[in-house]
Amino acid sequence: MFEEVESKALSFIESRYREYIRVLGELVAVDTVSAQRSSSEMMKGAQLVSSILSNAGFRTEVKNYGGHPIVVGELGDGPITVLIYNHYDVQPPEPLELWDSNPFELVERDGKLYGRGVADNKGNIVARLAAVEALAPYLDELGVKIKWIIEGEEEIGSPTLPKAVEELRDWLKADGGFWETGYVSRKGRLIIPLGFKGMLYVEVIVRGANRDVHSGSAPLVPNPVWRLVKFLSSIKDEDGRILVDWLYDGMIDLGPEAVELLKDIDIEDLEEMKKQLGIERFNMGLEGLEALKHLYLMPSINVSGLYAGYIGKGSKTVIPSIAGAKIDIRPVPGQDPERLFKLFKKFLEEKGLGDAEVIVHGAMYPAGYTKPSEDIVKASAETAERVYGIRPQLIPLSAGSGPYYYIANYVGTPLTGAGVGHYDSRVHAPNENIRIEDFVKSMKHVALTIIEFAKMKRKTTG
Amino acid sequence: MFEEVESKALSFIESRYREYIRVLGELVAVDTVSAQRSSSEMMKGAQLVSSILSNAGFRTEVKNYGGHPIVVGELGDGPITVLIYNHYDVQPPEPLELWDSNPFELVERDGKLYGRGVADNKGNIVARLAAVEALAPYLDELGVKIKWIIEGEEEIGSPTLPKAVEELRDWLKADGGFWETGYVSRKGRLIIPLGFKGMLYVEVIVRGANRDVHSGSAPLVPNPVWRLVKFLSSIKDEDGRILVDWLYDGMIDLGPEAVELLKDIDIEDLEEMKKQLGIERFNMGLEGLEALKHLYLMPSINVSGLYAGYIGKGSKTVIPSIAGAKIDIRPVPGQDPERLFKLFKKFLEEKGLGDAEVIVHGAMYPAGYTKPSEDIVKASAETAERVYGIRPQLIPLSAGSGPYYYIANYVGTPLTGAGVGHYDSRVHAPNENIRIEDFVKSMKHVALTIIEFAKMKRKTTG
Repeated sequence: MFEEVESKALSFIESRYREYIRVLGELVAVDTVSAQRSSSEMMKGAQLVSSILSNAGFRTEVKNYGGHPIVVGELGDGPITVLIYNHYDVQPPEPLELWDSNPFELVERDGKLYGRGVADNKGNIVARLAAVEALAPYLDELGVKIKWIIEGEEEIGSPTLPKAVEELRDWLKADGGFWETGYVSRKGRLIIPLGFKGMLYVEVIVRGANRDVHSGSAPLVPNPVWRLVKFLSSIKDEDGRILVDWLYDGMIDLGPEAVELLKDIDIEDLEEMKKQLGIERFNMGLEGLEALKHLYLMPSINVSGLYAGYIGKGSKTVIPSIAGAKIDIRPVPGQDPERLFKLFKKFLEEKGLGDAEVIVHGAMYPAGYTKPSEDIVKASAETAERVYGIRPQLIPLSAGSGPYYYIANYVGTPLTGAGVGHYDSRVHAPNENIRIEDFVKSMKHVALTIIEFAKMKRKTTG
Repeated sequence: MFEEVESKALSFIESRYREYIRVLGELVAVDTVSAQRSSSEMMKGAQLVSSILSNAGFRTEVKNYGGHPIVVGELGDGPITVLIYNHYDVQPPEPLELWDSNPFELVERDGKLYGRGVADNKGNIVARLAAVEALAPYLDELGVKIKWIIEGEEEIGSPTLPKAVEELRDWLKADGGFWETGYVSRKGRLIIPLGFKGMLYVEVIVRGANRDVHSGSAPLVPNPVWRLVKFLSSIKDEDGRILVDWLYDGMIDLGPEAVELLKDIDIEDLEEMKKQLGIERFNMGLEGLEALKHLYLMPSINVSGLYAGYIGKGSKTVIPSIAGAKIDIRPVPGQDPERLFKLFKKFLEEKGLGDAEVIVHGAMYPAGYTKPSEDIVKASAETAERVYGIRPQLIPLSAGSGPYYYIANYVGTPLTGAGVGHYDSRVHAPNENIRIEDFVKSMKHVALTIIEFAKMKRKTTG
């Protein structure tokens, strides 16, 4: 039975994929920049997603938790449940002048599709749609129910997702699921992240005089820059070495299996990264497995922005009234961002900046992860090797952040990855693109993963 | 003879001062923002100044040294020579929305005159013009020749003044002279600076990757912020204490006479400054004479601007490609800014930032000063007490900077101060203003200083 479903699903995809390029074009054409559009403007995107799902047979609903609308849908009856998470919102397209075509128009060129969101994350929605439609006639036979949640605030930190997850907790519980993404490496290996770091984004503002003052008075009037730089220089040294213990508070070891996954990562990609970025070495001269451990398994702290006084062209002589730093902290599994925030504030006080203003931007969320031993991970890894012709690269924890925790750990649905992007998809940047070849492979990969997962679950449950 | 000239000059001023308000209006109406206008646009201002001087009987010339034009004029035959230095350029008027009236229109309100440049420095040009016209009929009798130089680049660091001074060195040599400014304190005392600190303005740019990078890579990709903050924190501590010896290189002691002058400064003004600026204490808790010594006699170093990465609203997670700091250094007498610049670069290297880009903005110039024992200083101090009804406050060295050195020390013309501004003139800020009362007092003060100086010179030379 499974072989026959596989063969029919693959034929469906082969013969119909261009139809899905058209659907992707419809989605790209709706401006769903969550940082710039109102919730009522975003509704247009939510409704399009909802109607695309309805046309595929899903029972859908557009939910409102006070932010941008969330679409949920269900197809099939189970008993095996597969959850899919995606987002229909996109990053701002700016700077527009660097795009070779209109970001809100899907353009096909040299085997690639260009447009804002093609890789992140509209292309993944459509590839998964194709996979599900290919399987739709056989879902009962497979015993699979698909549950799909598509939010509209991922690019702004998913502020209302926790509320939705709280309410939908039971519904979101599934035997396995797909997180939003995955992409193809330079070597052609599908990269599947099995977790994401958390996020805590703070802005520290130190004040001096109540206005900018002529810098002739510098011998007397306090300049908040000196206090800020002293504080920052106690967080990391000039070589990027972390100097604070509290950053590691509560972290748990993901175990030898995580390190085993790192050993399978193509280390040349790190060398390629250095070349692309024009840097001679990484922080502290890190290389190889040690570099990967720092990148994927350790919490990070970074200054994303720094400002004080006159930053225009040429010169102006002022003692700045304020000096500020935007700091992003990415917790790893086991760490509580609320607690890290308290420790951060305690550290500020210890360093004499108890009077500084501290603003938290966006949502604070913990890291989430899925164990590589989960069936959904095994199913997706095995089928990825068949579809991509080379074994996938499993990352125990992405270096980036996402609200993965809520579904993988708070709800408890093990998640794997699948995706249409590649190493040069320019996610969040101008000329975002995917290769049509990868688009089709991802459709196949998702379809085969669901079949394989159903097979495994049948075996284990009887 | 001197008494009669005095009395006639004072009557002239009393009866004619409103005529000079009209002249000031003409000058204010010409936009001479040196930072924004081209040299040919600035010519309009130079020509107006030149024609105002010509109308007063001056033999004038508009000179070009490659930058904004410089006006020079001469009246009388000597043998006693008095030099006047002013500038017709002004600071940008922005932010325009904070002005209560058009900055380029002279508006009279409640005994005050508002407009860009009324205090800095057009009002001083006109007050001195009134003084000179009041004395014009008696210059031969007094044996005085007035030489006037009015440049158009003071607000942008006088980049071509050194060239002009080089060429005009002999002509600029005089028995005494007036620097551009002076202003009335809260207590009504005329503040006369007897020197100005120098200027060295550098921007240090530290580079990391060749573009901003997603901060998920923070464990590996070098962030130039850490290098920059480490460097800056080695210049001053969090309490504003200078940590570098090289900043004092070459400085000479202005002697006990400088300290004596500081003792005569109204210390309440420092307390008032704290109140106005909303600060509880000065750097290192400095107070009283110690605070004045730091403010007026010590070199200063300050961060006027600091920038890296994302500085807009909210959050963005990037490892900045560059981090920069704009640093202003104000040398004191004896210090060579070129040498300080070399020491700064050596210090950068020692601190591991030898690869940083260093840009010098504007002209680099040394501090200049005049001894309080000079006749022109004595003459102006004595007449200030008569005109203002309270003895003036002589500052051995202004906390601010100016190209005073070129004339006072390179050429060797002792300089004093005189000016129309007061403690709340909002120089460089919106609603720049002067009090009409001060405008008239300054006319009288300049006229009486010239007469007094002539009297002293007659005595000493014969």
